[in-house]
Amino acid sequence: MPRFALLIEYDGLPFHGWQRQAGGQPSVQAAIEAALGRLEPGPHTIAAAGRTDAGVHATGQVAHCDMARDWDPFRLSEALNFHLKPAPVAILRAVRVADDFHARFSATERRYLFRLQARRAPVTHDRGRVWQILNPLDVAAMREGAAHLIGSHDFTTFRSTLCQAKSPVKTLDEISIATAPVPGGTEYRFSLRARSFLHNQVRSIIGTLERVGAGGWDPADVKAALEARDRAACGPVCPPQGLYLTGVGYPVDPFAA
Amino acid sequence: MPRFALLIEYDGLPFHGWQRQAGGQPSVQAAIEAALGRLEPGPHTIAAAGRTDAGVHATGQVAHCDMARDWDPFRLSEALNFHLKPAPVAILRAVRVADDFHARFSATERRYLFRLQARRAPVTHDRGRVWQILNPLDVAAMREGAAHLIGSHDFTTFRSTLCQAKSPVKTLDEISIATAPVPGGTEYRFSLRARSFLHNQVRSIIGTLERVGAGGWDPADVKAALEARDRAACGPVCPPQGLYLTGVGYPVDPFAA
Repeated sequence: MPRFALLIEYDGLPFHGWQRQAGGQPSVQAAIEAALGRLEPGPHTIAAAGRTDAGVHATGQVAHCDMARDWDPFRLSEALNFHLKPAPVAILRAVRVADDFHARFSATERRYLFRLQARRAPVTHDRGRVWQILNPLDVAAMREGAAHLIGSHDFTTFRSTLCQAKSPVKTLDEISIATAPVPGGTEYRFSLRARSFLHNQVRSIIGTLERVGAGGWDPADVKAALEARDRAACGPVCPPQGLYLTGVGYPVDPFAA
Repeated sequence: MPRFALLIEYDGLPFHGWQRQAGGQPSVQAAIEAALGRLEPGPHTIAAAGRTDAGVHATGQVAHCDMARDWDPFRLSEALNFHLKPAPVAILRAVRVADDFHARFSATERRYLFRLQARRAPVTHDRGRVWQILNPLDVAAMREGAAHLIGSHDFTTFRSTLCQAKSPVKTLDEISIATAPVPGGTEYRFSLRARSFLHNQVRSIIGTLERVGAGGWDPADVKAALEARDRAACGPVCPPQGLYLTGVGYPVDPFAA
């Protein structure tokens, strides 16, 4: 069966996350599998690089699917987009890949963006798409705190108690923080990059760095929390709606052509 | 009565435009007047610089209101935002202004942004916030066409037949077009600036320039359409959801301090 890689964008707001739910609640996976079922008889089961939580968005999720017919990739993406309507899920690209390509297991990098806005007035256009706080943050302090997390560490502190990964050791390749003015305030954009992340790792890190930026924590407290290897040492886990899976890396980029 | 200027942001999607509707349909003006009514007995009637149409957004609308009490401006903005919830309308700033300040009649400049996205896949995050088309546009041709509109002209061609302005002559100070990559396509960002605009003028111009960018019109056809001074010579009026009122200029900026 020909295998296809799909580059996927979605608004996470109406979904209970990427993963199909036993209770049938809406999920991105189920939406795409249902659209595939309109093209060829199923059942269809697709695998994705990042199993994003409820409310988390994607601009560069990658999944793969196996089809009976040798679809023209462009026609496959168009047909899926047609059947996905009106769900806020879009197939940006479909490409034919080798049978041993696996969207999750072949991935060598995941990239996330977290959008945090500090302003007094409630967000309007960006509702459900950023985490809003009221007061500006100390970016230099957050950068200093974040620097302690770069590299290979036991991230037990920054991992959900529900996390199923065998090892808590991960290598964080990047946490950078950019700022941009928004009407009435400032947006802080956190970019994170790693081979893979633990469950809730990004939101645990951002929630902790926000405490540093607000002055409640010292930058050095991040190092102490990491070294504690204790979930209880983590700052508050931040809400999901500011989080975006922006890209997935593979040894050979299937979408490069 | 102390007068206040309000700097206002809103998502135009759920509203029948800025202006209060005789039939009671939701409008931004009515939402803010209702919030004012929670602070002081009314009736309250506010005036705005730009009477945006249904579905049109704002990041920098300006209105003024008269209050019985001499409110602390910051507390006024906070109280209004509290009572505006959950409507997607936010008061970014409130400032005390002179009694002869008029949000509409004192304004000397209006600035608009129009967001147009060309890509095959349906928009997800930006649904209701951009005009989507399927194929990329020729930016150089659009810039050449737009150049014919800069300056003082009789804009009868680019004016709604419902427009109530006394004269069709307006001075367009700027139309610039920037591009930015978006996942799976390109965003075209049109910035327009004038002392004031005719009804539907921006959307008539953008709809016409899109025809130029798509190759259906020559850039010189824009000049011919303008000189025709005939509404029938206009290109199609583009949809409202890509349009944002981004700012209003005054001889002295009330929000400068």
